[in-house]
Amino acid sequence: MSLIVVGSVALDTVETPADRRDEVLGGSASYFATVASMITPVRLVAVVGEDFSDEHLRFLRERDVDLAGLQRLSGRTFRWSGRYLDNMVDRETLDTQLNVFEKFSPQIPAAYRDSEYVFLANIDPCLQLEVLNQVDNPRLVALDTMNFWLTGESVSVLKKVLVHTDVIFLNDEEARMLSGKHSLVKAAAAVRLMGVKRVIIKRGDSGAMLFDDAGPFWVPAYPLEDVVDPTGAGDCFAGGFMAYLAFTGDLSDSNVRRAMVFGSVTASFAVEGFSVERFDSVHRGDLLLRCGEFGRLVRFEDVKL
Amino acid sequence: MSLIVVGSVALDTVETPADRRDEVLGGSASYFATVASMITPVRLVAVVGEDFSDEHLRFLRERDVDLAGLQRLSGRTFRWSGRYLDNMVDRETLDTQLNVFEKFSPQIPAAYRDSEYVFLANIDPCLQLEVLNQVDNPRLVALDTMNFWLTGESVSVLKKVLVHTDVIFLNDEEARMLSGKHSLVKAAAAVRLMGVKRVIIKRGDSGAMLFDDAGPFWVPAYPLEDVVDPTGAGDCFAGGFMAYLAFTGDLSDSNVRRAMVFGSVTASFAVEGFSVERFDSVHRGDLLLRCGEFGRLVRFEDVKL
Repeated sequence: MSLIVVGSVALDTVETPADRRDEVLGGSASYFATVASMITPVRLVAVVGEDFSDEHLRFLRERDVDLAGLQRLSGRTFRWSGRYLDNMVDRETLDTQLNVFEKFSPQIPAAYRDSEYVFLANIDPCLQLEVLNQVDNPRLVALDTMNFWLTGESVSVLKKVLVHTDVIFLNDEEARMLSGKHSLVKAAAAVRLMGVKRVIIKRGDSGAMLFDDAGPFWVPAYPLEDVVDPTGAGDCFAGGFMAYLAFTGDLSDSNVRRAMVFGSVTASFAVEGFSVERFDSVHRGDLLLRCGEFGRLVRFEDVKL
Repeated sequence: MSLIVVGSVALDTVETPADRRDEVLGGSASYFATVASMITPVRLVAVVGEDFSDEHLRFLRERDVDLAGLQRLSGRTFRWSGRYLDNMVDRETLDTQLNVFEKFSPQIPAAYRDSEYVFLANIDPCLQLEVLNQVDNPRLVALDTMNFWLTGESVSVLKKVLVHTDVIFLNDEEARMLSGKHSLVKAAAAVRLMGVKRVIIKRGDSGAMLFDDAGPFWVPAYPLEDVVDPTGAGDCFAGGFMAYLAFTGDLSDSNVRRAMVFGSVTASFAVEGFSVERFDSVHRGDLLLRCGEFGRLVRFEDVKL
């Protein structure tokens, strides 16, 4: 089942209280594709500059990531730099250089037009709309966004995209901004009224909630001894979620819940290392093992009175 | 199975952005006993002043709460007053008048010495230790505390109590203070090394985590449309948890997990009203119904790759 991601590829410089990495592979599409490619082929549409290293290209290509949609423009690659505070949740952005990403205009290669599973990572809603005009008949469209697109003109465009969206990923702040509701239950209901079938609210180290016709579902975050770097956890959640749906080809409510668990599993591995480095040593068996641990984490027998 | 709670009975004045209540029934022991009494008799040890109303006494007595351990001293009842911020999570304390609670010295009536299930609500660890000296041979001792007792001399006394404690309830800040570890997984492990078999970390609107020999377990908070008043949610969680164990008399790992779910159910009802008012209209059937909803909230079929 063909899966496509449209988003950013970046070079990240990340500081945590314990360690740091300079100009490592980052960006939503990199995280998403790295994770998804563990179980299904993935087509990547993004842009990099002339300075993007062969090493990073090789890393992605060797993971069964199709790079026919990766544009290379003259100029420098998108760079982001940030520092995490002691709680490893809050962070400050030290520097953002959009570089070639500022001129990103997603060109979907002809061979990608038949993509069935589409993930629109956090980019300008105008570009998200352009992408949808370039795919023929997707089975499932999922979308991520950020606070920056939730005001002014952008949010009007975003709402046009939402009409064609099956699944939206939001954190709690974004859900509240988009809906104008404080209660996450009410926020999810309001977003569903905008035309999105399933609303996923990411809760950071508390996991993620799904709201759809089958009622609410909550997958916790895996209780880790240590978080090394939270960057990209949300994109890795989306990568696991979408890949599981594409791999199984099953969009039933129960399979979407399995995909939530798989997303939380992949996100939990992501934060165990900087950038995508943890995935050098994670294999299918590790993923399945952790899925089993999620079962033990939440399962209980019927309460009787 | 005999259940006892030792803690505070207070008159609370609570403001939320939407509403307020003046001098309503509050205090850890009131919340705990109100909830527990829905499924099992409960013995209450606490202190009130001369001004404590017959109406409140009648409310508790009619709920099968044994008040033989409720002391009445000359002076005024403990009063607390607070205001919740817009997020309905953070709050500021406006006023605390300990009044007779300052002189609280728990006297366990002779008829209570055989109590099998003991809940030491948040009081001075010296008093918690005194209570344990007055019960003969409890099957299960559980304890709550707060940041105030986690520094200086108090924490040394608390650690003496912990040696005799089977279950501790902490929020994340308290778990970090007591253990000196930021990671909640490491914090729980460190607290278990202090002699506590099961550590429960309350995560507010994300639910609660249990750490014991059977591994971690996470029960989410019930996704509510509206939270009316979060005061007492933790005590209502403990009340549901302990009552379920006392009612069933089963301390197996799997039943302790059911008790976690039951605790989250009772906490979810508690925050739907001010004080204990929601429990005027909650019955066993409502509790069971919501337990079933928790099943649907977290259950998923095996992930296959």
